[in-house]
Amino acid sequence: MTKRFFLPESELPRQWYNIQADMPTKPLPPLNPATREPVTVDDLSHIFAHECAKQELDTTHAWIDIPEPVYEMYKYYRSTPLVRAYALEQYLDTPAHIYFKNESVSPLGSHKLNSALPQCYYCKQEGVTNVTTETGAGQWGAALSYAAKVYGLECAVYQVKVSMQQKPYRSSIMRTFGAAVIGSPSMSTRAGKDIITRDPSHPGSLGTAISEAIELATTTPNCKYTLGSVLNHVAIHQSIIGLEAEKQMQMAGEYPDIVIACFGGGSNFGGLAFPFMRHNLFDGKHTQFIAAEPDSCPKLTRGEFRYDFGDSAGYTPLLPMYTLGHDFKPANIHAGGLRYHGAGVIVSQLLKDGYMQGVDIPQLETFEAATLFARTEGIIPAPESAHAIAATIREAKRCKEAGEQKTILFNLSGHGLIDMTAYDQYNNGDLVNYSYHKS
Amino acid sequence: MTKRFFLPESELPRQWYNIQADMPTKPLPPLNPATREPVTVDDLSHIFAHECAKQELDTTHAWIDIPEPVYEMYKYYRSTPLVRAYALEQYLDTPAHIYFKNESVSPLGSHKLNSALPQCYYCKQEGVTNVTTETGAGQWGAALSYAAKVYGLECAVYQVKVSMQQKPYRSSIMRTFGAAVIGSPSMSTRAGKDIITRDPSHPGSLGTAISEAIELATTTPNCKYTLGSVLNHVAIHQSIIGLEAEKQMQMAGEYPDIVIACFGGGSNFGGLAFPFMRHNLFDGKHTQFIAAEPDSCPKLTRGEFRYDFGDSAGYTPLLPMYTLGHDFKPANIHAGGLRYHGAGVIVSQLLKDGYMQGVDIPQLETFEAATLFARTEGIIPAPESAHAIAATIREAKRCKEAGEQKTILFNLSGHGLIDMTAYDQYNNGDLVNYSYHKS
Repeated sequence: MTKRFFLPESELPRQWYNIQADMPTKPLPPLNPATREPVTVDDLSHIFAHECAKQELDTTHAWIDIPEPVYEMYKYYRSTPLVRAYALEQYLDTPAHIYFKNESVSPLGSHKLNSALPQCYYCKQEGVTNVTTETGAGQWGAALSYAAKVYGLECAVYQVKVSMQQKPYRSSIMRTFGAAVIGSPSMSTRAGKDIITRDPSHPGSLGTAISEAIELATTTPNCKYTLGSVLNHVAIHQSIIGLEAEKQMQMAGEYPDIVIACFGGGSNFGGLAFPFMRHNLFDGKHTQFIAAEPDSCPKLTRGEFRYDFGDSAGYTPLLPMYTLGHDFKPANIHAGGLRYHGAGVIVSQLLKDGYMQGVDIPQLETFEAATLFARTEGIIPAPESAHAIAATIREAKRCKEAGEQKTILFNLSGHGLIDMTAYDQYNNGDLVNYSYHKS
Repeated sequence: MTKRFFLPESELPRQWYNIQADMPTKPLPPLNPATREPVTVDDLSHIFAHECAKQELDTTHAWIDIPEPVYEMYKYYRSTPLVRAYALEQYLDTPAHIYFKNESVSPLGSHKLNSALPQCYYCKQEGVTNVTTETGAGQWGAALSYAAKVYGLECAVYQVKVSMQQKPYRSSIMRTFGAAVIGSPSMSTRAGKDIITRDPSHPGSLGTAISEAIELATTTPNCKYTLGSVLNHVAIHQSIIGLEAEKQMQMAGEYPDIVIACFGGGSNFGGLAFPFMRHNLFDGKHTQFIAAEPDSCPKLTRGEFRYDFGDSAGYTPLLPMYTLGHDFKPANIHAGGLRYHGAGVIVSQLLKDGYMQGVDIPQLETFEAATLFARTEGIIPAPESAHAIAATIREAKRCKEAGEQKTILFNLSGHGLIDMTAYDQYNNGDLVNYSYHKS
């Protein structure tokens, strides 16, 4: 039985997929909060690399060339394996076929490098010398720290304070790559100071850390802001996951009935789902797309679709998104990468139009799923990815009840080796569920 | 430029290589310490699975079939990639071609699963219900915990105390796989009690932890001891690394002039080196084999070749080995997996006969090498593997000075994501070198 499918190097995708060009209803434009006018590429270029800004608003080109030097860096770790989870299937005694895309074996242990590399490459091309960003769990910050080093850029990372405490090793990893790491909220920005003044024990959130990083980028010469999720250009870069998976599923002789990924801002979800979704749009496929979010941070299942800021201080354009409100203070769950108030613009429109669905999962269920996955497949998953595993197990059990042989594909977006304190809490019975409270 | 080489699944080795059969001078036999007679397979079977005991003393069969169920489990993560380290080469500005076998992407993050799977499989086949072992850094303990779970065995791991403190996440990983983890020296065995009585603050050592695990195995019904390195059967299982690498180097169109691995007991070194060494023995190749050990635990470069115990309490047979003495108390370096007083029997004979060489490397040099490797290749290596990287860098620099284009192959035996406290110390300037003091 073949367990892993790799692409021959010659089959590696040379273009990313931009679903914006193919969407029946285009996303609403981001707005300048002052003028309420749609933002332009030039507006966004104050914050981001110009090429990223272009991709962000590109609703016409479905395929975007991967720059040759980025492609060369991808070859260090891509394709990532597509794995058939026979042992998990057997344990669940399900007729479902379960596959996962194993992004955890990339350097840094997650999918985040897929976008960190092009973002830093574009910055370098455009004469930028410094990049900055926010990070929750630290997966994005670690990836950016390495990508910055690859292209000779200085890197400063605002890490959400609670994640920093939960996962101290991730800060060490970023420092090992030469990045400066600052706990957020910090006193180094106006946005951070404002929050600390109101709430000195604020645990931080992605929204706040984004504000701090944007403030640094806009007040520092030759410095650009980069983002690890939420935005359209990130989803474009992450499409490499789904494009590879599409070819690898062909090698396995199957096509997914269900595609599942965890959901923070939407990058690993979109990355895996969108290349398959185009076959729903054009080729009569009926794949079901499930985004798994924490039930304590449920923007997909309980958020409102409206214009909102992407950060807590209101530095970003207004984005048309499912949101819990940009001042939402998420519970201290261990899946730091999912502690974000809003959903990316593309996903929000697709959810509104019924092309995908959200499910919300309690923390304990995610760790139960993670432990089962570890004991069967040998890989300790990131708490974020454990949401996708839990949703997969729910579907596999449904298949068993219904006697249906469905093919499920999920994204193992990262490993959890830096998250062992969370597993300790779970193993000791100290882990709890949090419920959602509207802020 | 191709960066990674994978074997097609059909090319995965179906047999392990046993260099004992091909050695010009066979290793001296292990001796029963009481009688000074060579131990038999039956003697060893009191401690180990019978099949492992057979392999241990097998000096006639160069090729041993990999059992089908083990081969099926190997397919989950093997072949591991052979990677050309272009970025490191470029940084060093060396004419050398540097390749590494990346065992860090296996589940559990190291090469140790290669032997944990067959050892547990054989135990299961022979009706064993419980396995026990020692672990230093925890790589072996983690691999055994998972392999025991795969085959439905109970697992108890004695972990060296100082490593447990340095790498708390590794204990959490073992517990997540359902293993019992005991800090060694412990009060649960006579061997542990004896040591604690003499030295209550004893940091532990692999030698002591082995004594404790053997004592548990020999006093518990249906329980076998397993070992992650040192012994011949472990080196046999690990030959999968070198056998794959041999085919992968062919894919790359090269043959190594130098093969390098770090050295604790010899398993990852032998695993990579022995398949290539047979071409020195039979096919007129002149590859140089370098085992990189800590300068604070230098059995290869400063040990004596003589009969000694494999553990500190004297429970094992007497082994003909390069040793620092079985009561040697190694310094608290972060490369916990290399804190062992002796070298495996096969390696010891090969070293004595001039087929390989040892180099000893100070701790600071290993972390300097590790950081450079992380910043160029994106992977944070285990402190153990960092010894191989440091030795590789020395050779690559030599190539530069001499203007020689040599091909170097080293084993990246594991990643260092669980070892970030060590990197923190290094980054903070708190890491020190230890020198060797004869005990």
